[in-house]
Amino acid sequence: MSAPPDGEMSLPATPMELYEKVTLQGGTVRLLKSNKAPKEEIDAAVKELLALKMDYKTLAGQEYKVGIPPTNSTTVNNNSLAIAEDGGDYVDPWTVQTSSAKGVDYDKLIVRFGSSKIDQELINRMEQVTGQKAHRFFRRGIFFSHRDMHQILDAFEMKKSFYLYTGRGPSSEAMHVGHLIPFIFTKWLQDVFNVPLVIQLTDDEKYLWKDMTLEQAYNYAIENAKDIIACGFDINKTFIFSDLDYMGQSSGFYQNVVKIQKHVTFNQVKGIFGFGDSDCIGKISFPAIQAAPSFSTSFPQIFNGQKDIPCLIPCAIDQDPYFRMTRDVAPRIGYPKPALLHSIFFPALQGAQTKMSASDSNSSVFLTDTPKQIKTKINKHAFSGGKDTIEEHQRFGGNCEVDVSYMYLTFFLEDDEKLEKIRQDYSSGKLLTGELKKILIETLQSIITEHQLRRKQVTNETVKQFMTPRKLVFDF
Amino acid sequence: MSAPPDGEMSLPATPMELYEKVTLQGGTVRLLKSNKAPKEEIDAAVKELLALKMDYKTLAGQEYKVGIPPTNSTTVNNNSLAIAEDGGDYVDPWTVQTSSAKGVDYDKLIVRFGSSKIDQELINRMEQVTGQKAHRFFRRGIFFSHRDMHQILDAFEMKKSFYLYTGRGPSSEAMHVGHLIPFIFTKWLQDVFNVPLVIQLTDDEKYLWKDMTLEQAYNYAIENAKDIIACGFDINKTFIFSDLDYMGQSSGFYQNVVKIQKHVTFNQVKGIFGFGDSDCIGKISFPAIQAAPSFSTSFPQIFNGQKDIPCLIPCAIDQDPYFRMTRDVAPRIGYPKPALLHSIFFPALQGAQTKMSASDSNSSVFLTDTPKQIKTKINKHAFSGGKDTIEEHQRFGGNCEVDVSYMYLTFFLEDDEKLEKIRQDYSSGKLLTGELKKILIETLQSIITEHQLRRKQVTNETVKQFMTPRKLVFDF
Repeated sequence: MSAPPDGEMSLPATPMELYEKVTLQGGTVRLLKSNKAPKEEIDAAVKELLALKMDYKTLAGQEYKVGIPPTNSTTVNNNSLAIAEDGGDYVDPWTVQTSSAKGVDYDKLIVRFGSSKIDQELINRMEQVTGQKAHRFFRRGIFFSHRDMHQILDAFEMKKSFYLYTGRGPSSEAMHVGHLIPFIFTKWLQDVFNVPLVIQLTDDEKYLWKDMTLEQAYNYAIENAKDIIACGFDINKTFIFSDLDYMGQSSGFYQNVVKIQKHVTFNQVKGIFGFGDSDCIGKISFPAIQAAPSFSTSFPQIFNGQKDIPCLIPCAIDQDPYFRMTRDVAPRIGYPKPALLHSIFFPALQGAQTKMSASDSNSSVFLTDTPKQIKTKINKHAFSGGKDTIEEHQRFGGNCEVDVSYMYLTFFLEDDEKLEKIRQDYSSGKLLTGELKKILIETLQSIITEHQLRRKQVTNETVKQFMTPRKLVFDF
Repeated sequence: MSAPPDGEMSLPATPMELYEKVTLQGGTVRLLKSNKAPKEEIDAAVKELLALKMDYKTLAGQEYKVGIPPTNSTTVNNNSLAIAEDGGDYVDPWTVQTSSAKGVDYDKLIVRFGSSKIDQELINRMEQVTGQKAHRFFRRGIFFSHRDMHQILDAFEMKKSFYLYTGRGPSSEAMHVGHLIPFIFTKWLQDVFNVPLVIQLTDDEKYLWKDMTLEQAYNYAIENAKDIIACGFDINKTFIFSDLDYMGQSSGFYQNVVKIQKHVTFNQVKGIFGFGDSDCIGKISFPAIQAAPSFSTSFPQIFNGQKDIPCLIPCAIDQDPYFRMTRDVAPRIGYPKPALLHSIFFPALQGAQTKMSASDSNSSVFLTDTPKQIKTKINKHAFSGGKDTIEEHQRFGGNCEVDVSYMYLTFFLEDDEKLEKIRQDYSSGKLLTGELKKILIETLQSIITEHQLRRKQVTNETVKQFMTPRKLVFDF
């Protein structure tokens, strides 16, 4: 299996296997050149060759050299594909860490992960196809990267539909504001495209990774479902499921899990997720469970067994390793590759060096916080790009690039002009840190109070309805 | 976690971990001795120490020496626990191989696996408790080893019930006569003890291990179910399930699978089953799926959520690694350990060096064979312990210990006296090889013809009934 032409990386195998792939691809390039093949064909082959060489270097720890196979044939257990090695950024599904207060260098992550940038052209096309103004998350680069979004739009233009898949790992009862991002965005996508949506709650994953019982993990899933439902999803088009429940409700789901598990080796999950020999076998096989909802046959009750309905996955970029694996496996089990829309991380209160984490209550604004708690947390913890004294601030201005309050406003303030004015005023020193924080506090208080009101209206009966496997209402 | 007092091995960890266990146990022994503890207590601790030292030697490849930790701390990937190393016997769930024409040395296997011999005392007790003559498989050492069978009988005497669990990997449509052994025996146990029975068809396992589609594996499961039903199981007390089906029908089953998967590491399955880094993650996590039916909560529809109903598993000894793992995990997830009854292997036609295998049609008598095919196969392939000429045979006698026809008769001929007469006459040379084969041919023809008749009566509707998750009829 050679790397797909879009430059996406295939799964890592042993250095020796990769060595042979590079050698083979080198031969392909030479053949194309000697046959005077069309330029774009040669270019694509060269691009693939370079990507393979890069993978080889990462995996084997040495440059590819013709005729010199890897000296050490053991696979290096180094999370290689999960690391954006340049600049010291570390990104995998469990850890986000960078030394820069501006946050992770997302342009480098795009190169490293082999995804595509969401550029103005794509945004324009989306507006044209849907007849709607692009969501502020698109306009502001919060969803910044994609895989195959053009194919989803192609299909949509041809009146072929698709479905949305997103999810959450229910690690605690309380979700924080950062957790809302994919759901706010997915709700908008559902409204704009009018398509069915499945939301996976990986309670099995949390049970496997954390020190909690199955019952706790399941209860968190139910509590989290209430917060998700409060985002306003259409009950006729949305299926929310707990893995612990749904695995026992649908043989289609388990059958896809087994299909995926047959086509991914331990070496591969070791390379992608950094698993080791002392990890439990549940963790090792879990990636297949997060992959399976990418295929419409996992939901026979919704798609009636149709196996070619494309899937679009909005998620934070740290979840991409799961879906790189999924896209690698898809053609080998006869399914279309899922398309993806990647968001940046929601920064911790203390700064964009890491993402907001529910397990650190000081770093997070929870959806259960009172207006007073919100005020205290922002005032006390939100990292400021302002200067130490009012005089200095007024003279030199604040730094929006590292200011967490400003960053949060880019997520939550809908009005572009108002946001731009805040940016200018803060950068010039006209707007003081306290004033900026006050705008954020009021914005968050309003968002969270409204969320709490909507959540109160979510009854157990409603949760049960959303989580019952059933037909959804759609046109294709 | 120290090794249980019955000498059963706990799961292998790293040599270093085992080294520390041995050291710790050595301390315990010294302490007991210096405290002048009761003799049986000291003896038990010494027995455990010796078992741990033996495990250490296998895993670390060196003798345990006080104060000298293992030199090479990497775990040896050598199927260690699956090998009966003495005498060159090799036994794991996929391979049975020995250099001896008499077959595997089962007494050594008992020592190596840490199980208990089924001795005359146990057989007498079973006859007393059930009021029934012991099955010929007990009388003739075909079921020769057990774990905790006395506890099952204790419970039964106190009117507490238990359930039976056995299974089959549906690797092909055609089952051979050897496949009948656990089912003939399990049916007898069901009749004698009057308890519910679950039969697992591991179609997911066969899909993962073999070059076949999910649909093929599932179809084999259905075809095999017909052969199993033809053994005469009580439809009111028996639930037969395909993993591919049942995983999607019961959240209790998946939840137990995840619980087990959280408590077993890759290192452990590597040590027990010999899995390597290039094995697919499906194989690596599969042992949890064969383990889960050992716990009554995997069948909420049958046991109504009761989590303490003991399980008795009749199976061939090569399946023991799965259940050693299961027994190690059980107390850590709050469940009772399953009890086991182990059978010897059904020898290949060519001799007891290996077991009968459906993938080698020359080594097997299939349940679909015609009387003529049976006759030809036995005459042509059944390894004989007779002499080369009639004169020599009459003078020196045949060797029943290596004669496959005689071995098969020990499995299928009910009449003890008749079998003993055959043994004497063959050993003395009075019975010729052709005559012995004729007795076997007629016996097998009768068994298989009757089986085929009963199988024809198994309708698709009956299969569906057996395979529908439902309440079973029992008294506890």
